[in-house]
Amino acid sequence: MLNKRLKNIDLKKIKFHDSFWNRYIDLVDDVILPFQWELINDNVENAEKSYCIQNFHVACGDIEGEHQGVVFQDTDLAKWLEAVAYSIAKKSNPKLESIADKAIDLIARAQCEDGYLNTYYTITRKPRWSNLYEGHELYTAGHMIEAAVAYYEATGKKKFLGVVCRFADYMCEVFGEEEGKICGYPGHPEVELALVKLYNVTGIRRYLELANYFVRTRGKEPNYFLSEDSFKNQNFIFPEFKYFDLKYSQSHQPIHKQVTAEGHAVRAVYLYSAMADLAFEYQDEELLKQCDIIWNNIVEKKMYITGSIGSAAFGERFTTDYDLPNNTNYSESCATVGLAMFSNRMFQITKDGKYMDIVEKALYNTLLAGIAMDGKHFFYVNPLEVVPKIVENNPTMRHVKTNRQLWFGVACCPPNIARTLASLGNYTYAMEGNSLYINLFISSKLEANLDSGKVILDLNSNYLKDGEITLLVNPENENQEFTIALRKPSFTKNATIKVNGIVNKYHFDKGYMYFNRKWKTGDTITLNLDVSFRYVRSNPRVRDNIGKVSLMKGPLVYCLEEIDNGPYLSSIKIDTSIIPKEKYNQTLLGGTMCGLLQGMRIDYSKTGDKLYDEKKPIYVEDTFLAVPYCCWNNRGKGEMLVWMREK
Amino acid sequence: MLNKRLKNIDLKKIKFHDSFWNRYIDLVDDVILPFQWELINDNVENAEKSYCIQNFHVACGDIEGEHQGVVFQDTDLAKWLEAVAYSIAKKSNPKLESIADKAIDLIARAQCEDGYLNTYYTITRKPRWSNLYEGHELYTAGHMIEAAVAYYEATGKKKFLGVVCRFADYMCEVFGEEEGKICGYPGHPEVELALVKLYNVTGIRRYLELANYFVRTRGKEPNYFLSEDSFKNQNFIFPEFKYFDLKYSQSHQPIHKQVTAEGHAVRAVYLYSAMADLAFEYQDEELLKQCDIIWNNIVEKKMYITGSIGSAAFGERFTTDYDLPNNTNYSESCATVGLAMFSNRMFQITKDGKYMDIVEKALYNTLLAGIAMDGKHFFYVNPLEVVPKIVENNPTMRHVKTNRQLWFGVACCPPNIARTLASLGNYTYAMEGNSLYINLFISSKLEANLDSGKVILDLNSNYLKDGEITLLVNPENENQEFTIALRKPSFTKNATIKVNGIVNKYHFDKGYMYFNRKWKTGDTITLNLDVSFRYVRSNPRVRDNIGKVSLMKGPLVYCLEEIDNGPYLSSIKIDTSIIPKEKYNQTLLGGTMCGLLQGMRIDYSKTGDKLYDEKKPIYVEDTFLAVPYCCWNNRGKGEMLVWMREK
Repeated sequence: MLNKRLKNIDLKKIKFHDSFWNRYIDLVDDVILPFQWELINDNVENAEKSYCIQNFHVACGDIEGEHQGVVFQDTDLAKWLEAVAYSIAKKSNPKLESIADKAIDLIARAQCEDGYLNTYYTITRKPRWSNLYEGHELYTAGHMIEAAVAYYEATGKKKFLGVVCRFADYMCEVFGEEEGKICGYPGHPEVELALVKLYNVTGIRRYLELANYFVRTRGKEPNYFLSEDSFKNQNFIFPEFKYFDLKYSQSHQPIHKQVTAEGHAVRAVYLYSAMADLAFEYQDEELLKQCDIIWNNIVEKKMYITGSIGSAAFGERFTTDYDLPNNTNYSESCATVGLAMFSNRMFQITKDGKYMDIVEKALYNTLLAGIAMDGKHFFYVNPLEVVPKIVENNPTMRHVKTNRQLWFGVACCPPNIARTLASLGNYTYAMEGNSLYINLFISSKLEANLDSGKVILDLNSNYLKDGEITLLVNPENENQEFTIALRKPSFTKNATIKVNGIVNKYHFDKGYMYFNRKWKTGDTITLNLDVSFRYVRSNPRVRDNIGKVSLMKGPLVYCLEEIDNGPYLSSIKIDTSIIPKEKYNQTLLGGTMCGLLQGMRIDYSKTGDKLYDEKKPIYVEDTFLAVPYCCWNNRGKGEMLVWMREK
Repeated sequence: MLNKRLKNIDLKKIKFHDSFWNRYIDLVDDVILPFQWELINDNVENAEKSYCIQNFHVACGDIEGEHQGVVFQDTDLAKWLEAVAYSIAKKSNPKLESIADKAIDLIARAQCEDGYLNTYYTITRKPRWSNLYEGHELYTAGHMIEAAVAYYEATGKKKFLGVVCRFADYMCEVFGEEEGKICGYPGHPEVELALVKLYNVTGIRRYLELANYFVRTRGKEPNYFLSEDSFKNQNFIFPEFKYFDLKYSQSHQPIHKQVTAEGHAVRAVYLYSAMADLAFEYQDEELLKQCDIIWNNIVEKKMYITGSIGSAAFGERFTTDYDLPNNTNYSESCATVGLAMFSNRMFQITKDGKYMDIVEKALYNTLLAGIAMDGKHFFYVNPLEVVPKIVENNPTMRHVKTNRQLWFGVACCPPNIARTLASLGNYTYAMEGNSLYINLFISSKLEANLDSGKVILDLNSNYLKDGEITLLVNPENENQEFTIALRKPSFTKNATIKVNGIVNKYHFDKGYMYFNRKWKTGDTITLNLDVSFRYVRSNPRVRDNIGKVSLMKGPLVYCLEEIDNGPYLSSIKIDTSIIPKEKYNQTLLGGTMCGLLQGMRIDYSKTGDKLYDEKKPIYVEDTFLAVPYCCWNNRGKGEMLVWMREK
């Protein structure tokens, strides 16, 4: 019997006031969401056309035209609405809510009589569900459902929820093992986790059962996708699909046999998230164990130190254990979002801090690297080593960009980043009964309704600078007894905790420090975590990182940039016997703790013109400046390097 | 005014008896050519179908059917015939010649009334010359012409030459600046150098002029390719062409403005070969200078140490200066053949040994790596670093094979390797007037007709072992005066030359040691070249080779293989302060000089399971065995590494 699952705290009850994170969080409300609305309405000059809203108008018959954009173009609107929901949940925004309401009206009008909702198939009149492998109908449905659930939770308004319930009811009639039903499942998982959310908010069990059906049918023999016309005739919407194997879509074997992370990284982590949900809902300990095995395969064999996944661009996919090239990888921003989703679910079910360590790594590094500090430019692909001249001239790296882009043709990542930032509270805190979990150390004020009564907690974090975090506890009732669980990050060598200045005993379990106590108004917890700079090395089975080190401070991975260190970053050797110096720069990148490293570099002025020669290069001593990886490429195009050679 | 151009020596007059090279040369006659004939006749089980001969029968109307294979499938037969020509020029082979004669009859029957010859366009009845960018008609024509010229030179038979002259006459009517003619040029250069050969053998100047027209028109504004339907409608035979720029086909600017090597590597070096030919034929010193600039750009900025070119698989192309990744590169065997062709032409025109250094590098390393020691398996792609598990699971390297393949769908490389091996004499020696050039030190006996009379020369080479080469000179006339020019490879620090045991004076010029002397029967030249093992480093502008060394001995690049050194070759650090030991192994790979290197490697038994950790790996001292790169992968699948980390 599994424990109770931890729950999110209502986003309305969490107010962030963090000098680091609010840069990004505030961008979502103030810049990204208004900007993305203009983008999906094709009102931004010089941006690639989205056609997203236009497609809905065509589907409604408001205007004439054809469907444009990719088959899953509708998800841009869904993910935008989901982010809007989280945003207005945190902070009322009548203007944004009114725009969202109108967008929901448009969606409702685009829904077919029978509940079906998808502008591509509606406009093109192609047969529904005829290409589950590539058609993305269920994927698109999943994002609609997630948005509708979030919007209902944020506003209490039921219209959008009603739309997706009608759609889900229709899907329940269409899919299943029963005769006359389609016994298929989505090529791109997503609807499964969405249906679990819809079940949780409506209590309608058939939604959970449909999710369960989709997941448990996946990959069974004979493989459903092979029976579809696209496979049989090798006539694909996406021509490259003919080169993909069934692992690409995690349908190479039944899910209960899958113990390694395979295929397209986003598909994979969305599927694993649903598997975790179902393990809990069905109290299936075997499945939960399997999720943990897959999760371990990712984080101990297939994950970049920045919390990104997907070692190959072709197929945007996992490759093999310990294959982590730094410059040809895909490391899609969306896959990192999915990894955080999967890890957060595993944490909520198991209360094991190891999962939250990865959430933290993913959010602090790759998620933020995906977005520019102006909130308007995005990376889909997140390499750990970039030499612009090579990236721009060697088509092996044609998926890599040397500057963040305004908006891509396939706009999955920007709204995915936005909805994650807008729902940051769901990762930061969790609760259950009379226990409050503090997972991420982001300055914020929250109000939690524990069994023992309401608690107001003010968290002030200096986590990224000196590792000191203070929590001011204000319980509703004097001497209110409850448990505060503080995460102890796995990188921390020392953690000291004081309550009102006195070192306090605590119970430590799976990465969490548990205090049970009768709390008084004004009780102050002071947590000191060791976040001094540290050099981290790869397992030497990772060919690309042999002889190299990376620099970390707390959860942040650091990197070298050309603007600070000149070109030919690969020629630098770091002397790791010398402790890196902290150097806070008030003006750099909105205020940044930099690392000053000692080492040497090749003197290129003494290098001849010969391509091959017996002579050795000449090294000179030098000092190097490292900045957080998440901030890279905010000062123009240039080289960047995470894994540095070690002297 | 350019000097006279050096000439090839009649292949009939060169007999190789070299323990290293004859392994491969004999394979061509005994194994490769008979085997390839079966392959292009689709008689080899488990090999991919070629359809090459079948297409000719369909084109003749012998059988009904459609064209199968790629648009340039005819070139398999052309390149096979060219190799047969060189082979029977060296050593009479009536059986092979009779097969070749019949194949030529078939080609002649497939020729159209007006001289046009191409089974793809004949069978499909697609409009001729409608897609010069991709259609490969002129490319295919070029290979037919090269084959016919070689066959005529080998056998004196004129039938095939007549066929291609009729074709060339027709092309002269079709292409040109005059009104009513097509003012285009080939997407894939090849016909240009072939037309120069045809001119040289027939003396018909319009063939030279057509070659000149093609080369000088290339890349002029408005670009011809952009006027073709395939470009205008973005409807390509090869879908990936829509992603290629004009640099891909070296048509981005007029050739007199091109000073860097760009685009598809095979296309490039075939074009540059023709440019060199035309520079000589038109006595165009500017063009020759430009060829030298491009050649320098290749060998000093874009060439692997193994003499291969093409840093990217997508587009099989050059990328940018100093971009030489070792595991994702293309380095096509055919491109190396083309580089040897270009370099040999430049040498023949300038008599500069720097060009021959590159011919030697290309032939000894990449050309031979392209072929298995069984003569039946081939590499198209020649990486310098292979980890099979990664290559097989990371689609970034899906172009790389971990074992040589029997025959590929597009069979360009195997016949290209065969024709190069069969014509090795054209690279080994050259002559002009009263001078005999010895370029490569391959044991052989030759007869050269110099102005002063015939000379028989017996070269016995221990080049790869100890660098001692002896030449027994037998002039037709006693005291016959002539010049022997011996190449001094640029890597050689010391070269001592004795004639009949006495150190001799010589004139040194651009890499050649010139002896002019009255030669007597039995005069013996002894050349001692320093071929001791040496460590070679890359220019540190090559990011991928920073901190690494390669091992060379004479012209041979060495590598580490897993079968000798275990896995994780990247973890090895070589102590280059210790001189590598020579270790001759009589049985290994047909008798091979190995290198024994001292260094250290990571002890993986002491490596934990963590992916990221602060602890350093533990190194242990070890000895490593290096073998010639050209012999790699002849003992099963495994890791291979050229650039080793330096301690």
